[in-house]
Amino acid sequence: MIDGILEEYRLKIESRLDMINALPGQPYDPVIDAARYSLLGGGKRIRPVILLEFYKLCGANDDCAYNFACALEMIHTYSLIHDDLPCMDNDDMRRGKPSCHIRYGESMALLAGDNLLTEAFAACAKTLGLPQERVLRAISYLSGAVGSAGMIGGQVIDTSVPVQNEQMLFRMYSLKTCALIRAAAVCGVILAGGDDEKIKLAETYAENLGLAFQIIDDLLDVGGTADVLGKPVGSDDKNGKNTAVRLLGESRCRALATQYTENALSALSGFNADTSVLKEITEMLLTREK
Amino acid sequence: MIDGILEEYRLKIESRLDMINALPGQPYDPVIDAARYSLLGGGKRIRPVILLEFYKLCGANDDCAYNFACALEMIHTYSLIHDDLPCMDNDDMRRGKPSCHIRYGESMALLAGDNLLTEAFAACAKTLGLPQERVLRAISYLSGAVGSAGMIGGQVIDTSVPVQNEQMLFRMYSLKTCALIRAAAVCGVILAGGDDEKIKLAETYAENLGLAFQIIDDLLDVGGTADVLGKPVGSDDKNGKNTAVRLLGESRCRALATQYTENALSALSGFNADTSVLKEITEMLLTREK
Repeated sequence: MIDGILEEYRLKIESRLDMINALPGQPYDPVIDAARYSLLGGGKRIRPVILLEFYKLCGANDDCAYNFACALEMIHTYSLIHDDLPCMDNDDMRRGKPSCHIRYGESMALLAGDNLLTEAFAACAKTLGLPQERVLRAISYLSGAVGSAGMIGGQVIDTSVPVQNEQMLFRMYSLKTCALIRAAAVCGVILAGGDDEKIKLAETYAENLGLAFQIIDDLLDVGGTADVLGKPVGSDDKNGKNTAVRLLGESRCRALATQYTENALSALSGFNADTSVLKEITEMLLTREK
Repeated sequence: MIDGILEEYRLKIESRLDMINALPGQPYDPVIDAARYSLLGGGKRIRPVILLEFYKLCGANDDCAYNFACALEMIHTYSLIHDDLPCMDNDDMRRGKPSCHIRYGESMALLAGDNLLTEAFAACAKTLGLPQERVLRAISYLSGAVGSAGMIGGQVIDTSVPVQNEQMLFRMYSLKTCALIRAAAVCGVILAGGDDEKIKLAETYAENLGLAFQIIDDLLDVGGTADVLGKPVGSDDKNGKNTAVRLLGESRCRALATQYTENALSALSGFNADTSVLKEITEMLLTREK
């Protein structure tokens, strides 16, 4: 069941992403081409789906939140493009293809990331059919989640500080990985007009899902093959960085991933609505192979 | 007179910029430090002043637009930081000091730019005390002006295409330099609730001011000294790029700068209000020496 639902979401999200980031007829625009290369080159589209599911959970039954949902995927892609640059992680491959800067050159990759971030906020501001105070509040939450107190803050730790213990590693994951997932869940609630109690549940869900997601990423990075992962095995390792597996060992990582997944599922049960899709996504991410 | 008014603006804008981009007590945050280094290291603050003056021109008489005005300066600074990076113009000096990436390293400069762009939209969304539809409309205009159909589009031409004629050069200037100035003028009008006729005048003013500004920049780049300019003389030249002076010669450039300045002043006269500050700024930019 879940595969069909996710596939339906994927098609709708990708068609909207395609529209928002349309190539102009003339002249050819290399920055949009580069952005589209990374944006439309695969990915699970988990963040937009989470936003749209929380939107539905809070009783909204329309397509008004799609632009905002797509903005999350654009921000996710911008972060990957900039993260792959030589001055950051220097990764040549992403999702089984050459990274954006390998394909388009460093300057165009830099600008493609800048443009995706910019156009993401443009897409948010064009959320039509919903009360404007909700849209502004959601933009405010999102920008807070992806700035220096959120996603970028995580990149800063990842880039500039040797992570030496569990507490610091999880702080980094909470910022770098969980913050954007948290924005997805919470903005879904805000756009649907959900109350503070629902926002709190959405935050708890997303924080735990994000930690489980990141730990499994680390486990896959040790145990996967390049073919399945779409990037070199051990690529996080090559920069000498500590991962959850390095610090805690595989078996404790598996136990933690299961625990965080259970916490996420338990937050969902606080909603008085059908959470089956989110439950299946959550379990699917725990058992995924790439 | 104008010096006193600009100084008063500068102090208020810089104090607000300082507050928006405050360093946390603990832990030390290198990305905010790097952003502040570039953001608070001088500059004429022309874009925020233009926004605030157009806001006043349209009858608004309060401080509600300051956050939005500061966002323009943050976006301007992000564009300078990314533009100076080795993969772009590779400029080591900016405003008489080492560029952000020379001082903080490439990865931190990249993230500082990303963060300023992100926090700029956060600041816009926190524009309080004004009707929310105006704020959303202004965010929409601003994000359009600094994306691939605006400022980033100008960077793309500047980076990837050899500019071979006057038309193409002015297209690049219109996107790279004028678009953000246009956003400043127009967002001032939008936030104050000005009508479409005023938006049109603001666009005409800003487009002409931006072109005059950029041509004078090119003239100064040829004739100035590094001490006065704060960057190496001929730095635009060193990458083999065409400038207005190279394509058109100095005397035609001076004539064009005067013409665009007159066009800008003429647009101002369409406002039924006191435009003396904007007039003085416009004339001051024409005769500036750095």
